[in-house]
Amino acid sequence: MPSVTTRFFHTGSAAQPFRLRDGGELPGVTLAYETWGELNAERSNAILLFHALSGSHHAAGLNTGIEGLDQIWQPELHEGWWSDMIGPGLAIDTDRYFVICANYLGGCYGSTGPSSIHPETGKPWGSAFPHVTAADQVEIQARLLDELGIENLTAVIGPSVGGLVALTFATRFPDRVRNVISIASGYKTTVLNRLVLFEQILAIENDRNFNGGDYYEGSPPLYGLALARMISHKTFVHLDAIERRARQDVVQPDDVLSWYRVRDQFQSYMLHQGKKFVKRFDANTYLRIIDLWSRFDGAAEGDAETAENLFERSRLAGQKWLVFSIDSDFCFYPEEQTELVSHLERAKVEVMHITVHSDKGHDSFLLEPDMYTPHIAWVLGKS
Amino acid sequence: MPSVTTRFFHTGSAAQPFRLRDGGELPGVTLAYETWGELNAERSNAILLFHALSGSHHAAGLNTGIEGLDQIWQPELHEGWWSDMIGPGLAIDTDRYFVICANYLGGCYGSTGPSSIHPETGKPWGSAFPHVTAADQVEIQARLLDELGIENLTAVIGPSVGGLVALTFATRFPDRVRNVISIASGYKTTVLNRLVLFEQILAIENDRNFNGGDYYEGSPPLYGLALARMISHKTFVHLDAIERRARQDVVQPDDVLSWYRVRDQFQSYMLHQGKKFVKRFDANTYLRIIDLWSRFDGAAEGDAETAENLFERSRLAGQKWLVFSIDSDFCFYPEEQTELVSHLERAKVEVMHITVHSDKGHDSFLLEPDMYTPHIAWVLGKS
Repeated sequence: MPSVTTRFFHTGSAAQPFRLRDGGELPGVTLAYETWGELNAERSNAILLFHALSGSHHAAGLNTGIEGLDQIWQPELHEGWWSDMIGPGLAIDTDRYFVICANYLGGCYGSTGPSSIHPETGKPWGSAFPHVTAADQVEIQARLLDELGIENLTAVIGPSVGGLVALTFATRFPDRVRNVISIASGYKTTVLNRLVLFEQILAIENDRNFNGGDYYEGSPPLYGLALARMISHKTFVHLDAIERRARQDVVQPDDVLSWYRVRDQFQSYMLHQGKKFVKRFDANTYLRIIDLWSRFDGAAEGDAETAENLFERSRLAGQKWLVFSIDSDFCFYPEEQTELVSHLERAKVEVMHITVHSDKGHDSFLLEPDMYTPHIAWVLGKS
Repeated sequence: MPSVTTRFFHTGSAAQPFRLRDGGELPGVTLAYETWGELNAERSNAILLFHALSGSHHAAGLNTGIEGLDQIWQPELHEGWWSDMIGPGLAIDTDRYFVICANYLGGCYGSTGPSSIHPETGKPWGSAFPHVTAADQVEIQARLLDELGIENLTAVIGPSVGGLVALTFATRFPDRVRNVISIASGYKTTVLNRLVLFEQILAIENDRNFNGGDYYEGSPPLYGLALARMISHKTFVHLDAIERRARQDVVQPDDVLSWYRVRDQFQSYMLHQGKKFVKRFDANTYLRIIDLWSRFDGAAEGDAETAENLFERSRLAGQKWLVFSIDSDFCFYPEEQTELVSHLERAKVEVMHITVHSDKGHDSFLLEPDMYTPHIAWVLGKS
């Protein structure tokens, strides 16, 4: 597998801070990003990819170390999360396209986030790190494109939460985007989304170590983040699959909570998945991205009155949309993509909606590249 | 509404403790219970009712105060939870039957539980209160029947977790039971049950005030129990209904967590439901009953090798079973009752399985008495 190195983009300064929609300010922002393939002479073959909630900018190839990251860059992250999709001859063909993926603002994999050092205090931002929105994410990634000298994109692509950010990029910068590929994502959070996300927020907030987010000098909110991950895990993966994997495990001897005795393989497995996640993710980053997701409303992120106003921009720009649903998805339900597609259709945007039938649930997009490759390759090939 | 008074049954002593299946011992156990109707001269018209996870023995009528309970007996509890079902001429007709309902061992409404005073230390049991099982519950309620001079029951009835305990009573004491009515309940926990219950256990365990269960001298694990309730709430009630109610609410000014800002009516509503629950329930009791449920397996509770062995007892005793499913139930899914019924059928037990179609989810059994009344009245009337 080819190696890839993370690069860093810096923008803003104490004198010219990056202003966030919620009123927060960040002096000097860094984005960690990677690229694959070569930018052509016309600078017209770039694709901007957005990652999922707990993903990273390391989408393809092998990366065994990132500057400034120590413990958190766990071995399970070294292989890119979409290595089956991005490469020569693959769905996103790096012989033809120049692909860019950046870690989100507020992230924990090299971009400025709550665990970064605040320049004035010399300590991690923690609770002082502001709330970020999808609109903030795309504003800063547009600056990255400017820096790379890329005006127009062949496509923006995003699975899961990445699809929300892709939608926002495409509607805030309609003339920069020719194709939009949204996979297992949505247009606006539903009541069920907001409830499941709120449970996760409370799980972290309630951890005895959380301290409002200022935990970097002590122990991190381990059980709170593990519980949050557990709550979300059951929406990502089909329960039958979890149970099959759990059957191969034994109950771990350290699964002793203060009162409850874990005697069940399945509960033990889920707890260990949660604890494993804690080693590779920061709770404050998790909260920032969950907050972004929980408040997401396509029109609001694009400063449009209605969905129709928003997507009129896509129509005027002649964008082509490809929307994927997964029939067994309990995270972004198929109804959510149906809502997105009906908004696009009402605005007379060219859109193709494909449902893949899978028993793998939301994670199908990570596990079953063949389900997505033909349509993605075909749509990109036509542009 | 007729008033009803809670009574107390005492059994065991330091010299003759009540032994639990898990090895724990309790010296001197108290059960809080209520009765409705009159026991006939033949002592043959008694019905034993089992309550749900967060329910109480106060099933019908008005009870404005229970001896020994202060703050926790909140006004919302004063009216019995099944007052529409138990009374003269109702589904469980108190002109004909003598109905008994007891608060579970480990409960917080007058039966011996974690908040009760340990006789040796003079302090609440807290973390020292043992694990209890459904088998323990029915052993102690059988002693209550002995005390009341009741050998045989017209029926055991239980909705939700109460259905699990009813099943255990009916199979451990088959000759004492003529009819079994199990409503929106099951035979054995599923993977999904165990996951959702485990999330709730972790939510409480992880609260900074929990202290292994020894919190009675300080603050209770408020946010942990509220989060647990929130996680379960979405399985009880249809989300559309929650959303409709939430729309009538405003975001409460005190919904400020340490970092997250609650801006959403729905999240605010759910948080307030959780906080309301905390006032009327004890977290340690919640954990004891959830633990009972999480480990529930009909055969194991009845000390039988298989489901068929277990229900052979029901067949030999000539029991008649009535099993209700609710089509929109996300707590005890209809598949769970189907499993129970197929075990009963395989053992050649007489069983009638009825599905009610409701948009109210699991809570239908509390909200829609007309759905259940005809079949229950008919089955009891025939016995």
